Amino acid sequence: MAKIPGFFSLKHFLVLSLALNVSLVMRVVFENEKQGPVFGFCLSKLRGSLMADDQASQRTLQATPSSWAKTQNSLAEVKDDLERVVNLDHGDPTMYEHYWENMGERTTIVIRGWQSMSYFSDIKNICWFLEPELAKQVVRLHKVVRNAETEGRHIVVGTGSSQLFLAALFALSPKEATEPISVVSAAPYYSSYPTMTDYQKSALHKWAGDSRIFNQMGPYIELVTSPNNPDGFIRHSCVNRSGGAIIHDLAYYWPQYTPMTFPADNDLSLFTVSKSTGHAGMRIGWALVKDPEVAKKMTKFIELNTIGVSKDSQLRAAKVLEVVADSCVQSGGSEFRESFFEFSYRLMAERWQQLRETVNNSNGIFSLPEFSPAFCQFHGRDLEPQPAFAWLRCRDDIEDCESYLRGFKILTRGGKHFGASTKYVRVSMLDRDENFRVFLKRLSAIR
Amino acid sequence: MAKIPGFFSLKHFLVLSLALNVSLVMRVVFENEKQGPVFGFCLSKLRGSLMADDQASQRTLQATPSSWAKTQNSLAEVKDDLERVVNLDHGDPTMYEHYWENMGERTTIVIRGWQSMSYFSDIKNICWFLEPELAKQVVRLHKVVRNAETEGRHIVVGTGSSQLFLAALFALSPKEATEPISVVSAAPYYSSYPTMTDYQKSALHKWAGDSRIFNQMGPYIELVTSPNNPDGFIRHSCVNRSGGAIIHDLAYYWPQYTPMTFPADNDLSLFTVSKSTGHAGMRIGWALVKDPEVAKKMTKFIELNTIGVSKDSQLRAAKVLEVVADSCVQSGGSEFRESFFEFSYRLMAERWQQLRETVNNSNGIFSLPEFSPAFCQFHGRDLEPQPAFAWLRCRDDIEDCESYLRGFKILTRGGKHFGASTKYVRVSMLDRDENFRVFLKRLSAIR
Repeated sequence: MAKIPGFFSLKHFLVLSLALNVSLVMRVVFENEKQGPVFGFCLSKLRGSLMADDQASQRTLQATPSSWAKTQNSLAEVKDDLERVVNLDHGDPTMYEHYWENMGERTTIVIRGWQSMSYFSDIKNICWFLEPELAKQVVRLHKVVRNAETEGRHIVVGTGSSQLFLAALFALSPKEATEPISVVSAAPYYSSYPTMTDYQKSALHKWAGDSRIFNQMGPYIELVTSPNNPDGFIRHSCVNRSGGAIIHDLAYYWPQYTPMTFPADNDLSLFTVSKSTGHAGMRIGWALVKDPEVAKKMTKFIELNTIGVSKDSQLRAAKVLEVVADSCVQSGGSEFRESFFEFSYRLMAERWQQLRETVNNSNGIFSLPEFSPAFCQFHGRDLEPQPAFAWLRCRDDIEDCESYLRGFKILTRGGKHFGASTKYVRVSMLDRDENFRVFLKRLSAIR
Repeated sequence: MAKIPGFFSLKHFLVLSLALNVSLVMRVVFENEKQGPVFGFCLSKLRGSLMADDQASQRTLQATPSSWAKTQNSLAEVKDDLERVVNLDHGDPTMYEHYWENMGERTTIVIRGWQSMSYFSDIKNICWFLEPELAKQVVRLHKVVRNAETEGRHIVVGTGSSQLFLAALFALSPKEATEPISVVSAAPYYSSYPTMTDYQKSALHKWAGDSRIFNQMGPYIELVTSPNNPDGFIRHSCVNRSGGAIIHDLAYYWPQYTPMTFPADNDLSLFTVSKSTGHAGMRIGWALVKDPEVAKKMTKFIELNTIGVSKDSQLRAAKVLEVVADSCVQSGGSEFRESFFEFSYRLMAERWQQLRETVNNSNGIFSLPEFSPAFCQFHGRDLEPQPAFAWLRCRDDIEDCESYLRGFKILTRGGKHFGASTKYVRVSMLDRDENFRVFLKRLSAIR
């Protein structure tokens, strides 16, 4: 045995040894938790890591000097070629690539030359081009996540939720009216709504602006995006009278972005894989529709628009949704099996923490919305929203925040596109890690 | 040696033996030709089999009693559950499944979970959601088949050619006009054109009917489908004045349906995999567009409509087009390597021969269009069209051919949908073999 120096007693050695043991035991427990070999439903898997997340979230709000210093140190390592344009204008969800790489071959699909050749998928279904396997996985995932009621609903698949939005406008617009129906949404609203409503110059529907100040008589369609794009707040109908139909755009109503307070129970809700799993290139969305007549009209729209929806992408989407649900309910092992929503919640929390720290240290040049926590049925505790977009505000003396940031080669989408002030910009929080860190570094250098 | 009966001389035996040899040699040659281990470019591969095909085609026109008897014998074997509905209303191209099964794994694609996640495919291209590999294979196939000029064209990909048709209407309609632009096509025209033009009640464009009788002043858009759906004839512009834009719908301008007389050299042509390779479930079409401003507007339409086109299906389509071109130019081997257009030409020829024989023996109840042969640049000889649809006419005393055939549980699409007489129906020639044979059997039983 090696000789112990004279200034160490045996007691000292025992205390040191015990401390080492405790630290090692804690590390093993923590690592196990991170790697996810926990049995049972995600709820229990998530609780452990959410304790840490919640502390992180509280740190975010406090923005302690030590965590800010840590962020600064980490940003110091980021290489920033100042010529490079950081494009955070679109909500391209490339952040998720990392998770799917780690999941290896679990979502790999193989399609053979003679498969999926027909136009038809399920001729007995109202939506005759809906692949039954996708329908099955959509229902399963909503049940696991508890974000939407699927009982008594018809599923209509679309080429992304954009096509479903147009299909819903078509289905809900009276066909024989003398005037086009008014389409409204509370500002700030998704920047594409006005153009998508009006680009065909349709006599069926016309954009009528902010629902908060809408006071025309007659029927209307209200678009309720919740959590909202661009600002992340939970939304409800604003038009305080009857005679309206509501399209609920729930693209962001998933556990990584906002607490799952209740399963959505609407007449017509829209979802998309682009923002739920990150597979924007698939162009797959789905609508949950209560009224079969509305589902029929939406199906007719898609038939006239594109004669159905890519079967290849529907089958791939079904596989991805299946693996997401599996990642929540399956027992772990030595392989990478982190729950999809655990991973994405943690990543969003980390990004929001870093962004809030950066904004808090901007000497008031920038500010961000503040959210109240709510109880999340999926995660099983109070949590704060951490939206897919940051609705960033510039100080009063900066008239046009979009132009201001463009001066630093940061591309964002200015407030005017969303029916709001040019002092605001929408910034994607879903880009690849490298881009997001360069963005933070540039933002933190602005004084 | 077995004893020869007395009424046979040695001479008799020699003649018999020689006849047997000749028959065996011919059979070997024919089988080789069918299996296709022929070297060199498809042109030469096809010539051999086309000799036989051409003879078959001539036989068709003559409808000899012997070939008709053969068809009858073959139909006698078809099991027909008389309760079954034979649906030939849609042009579902399931006939092609057989070829792709025989091609085995050559067109199999594997897509991993982290691939094709972004919205973007090629941000330097006007059509920023077009996969470069699809663009490459589109150009290559047009060069191999010689059916369209691709030099100086922009490729715009769409969710089937339906979406591209709508995108083209949008791009070619004046945005600030006081009146919607007239959209016309010569009757019989594709049954979906009127509804697709008008279903959104757009102030940009309106359906104005048969181009042959169109006499309004002002700008117009003419739809030229060639070969035409439903009747298979080659089409040219009908409106005899300037001020019009033309959309060429060339979905059927492929060597299995019609002679490739020249490479199409239009301002705007539409193609689709649905009818070229049979992959309707992919929902992939492409436009060849001369004017970059038109290509930009079409791209904008698709952006607002569906934010791009499924990447999964684009990549699958690229693989299928590559294998089709390969099948034309690669040398053979012991494996199944029949040229795609050789297979599909032969199958269409066989079906048209059988249908013509059946119609010719219908005591005048039915009749079909007659086509003139033309020189095919791809096949290298004079050939007759054999369209994807049969434009079947009922005898004068049958007012409604669609209803008449429905009485025999045969679903077709009646002439009125195409702006033509109810005495006509459109019958899909692209269904699975079993369905097509039951159709023939029922048709041949109608006296």
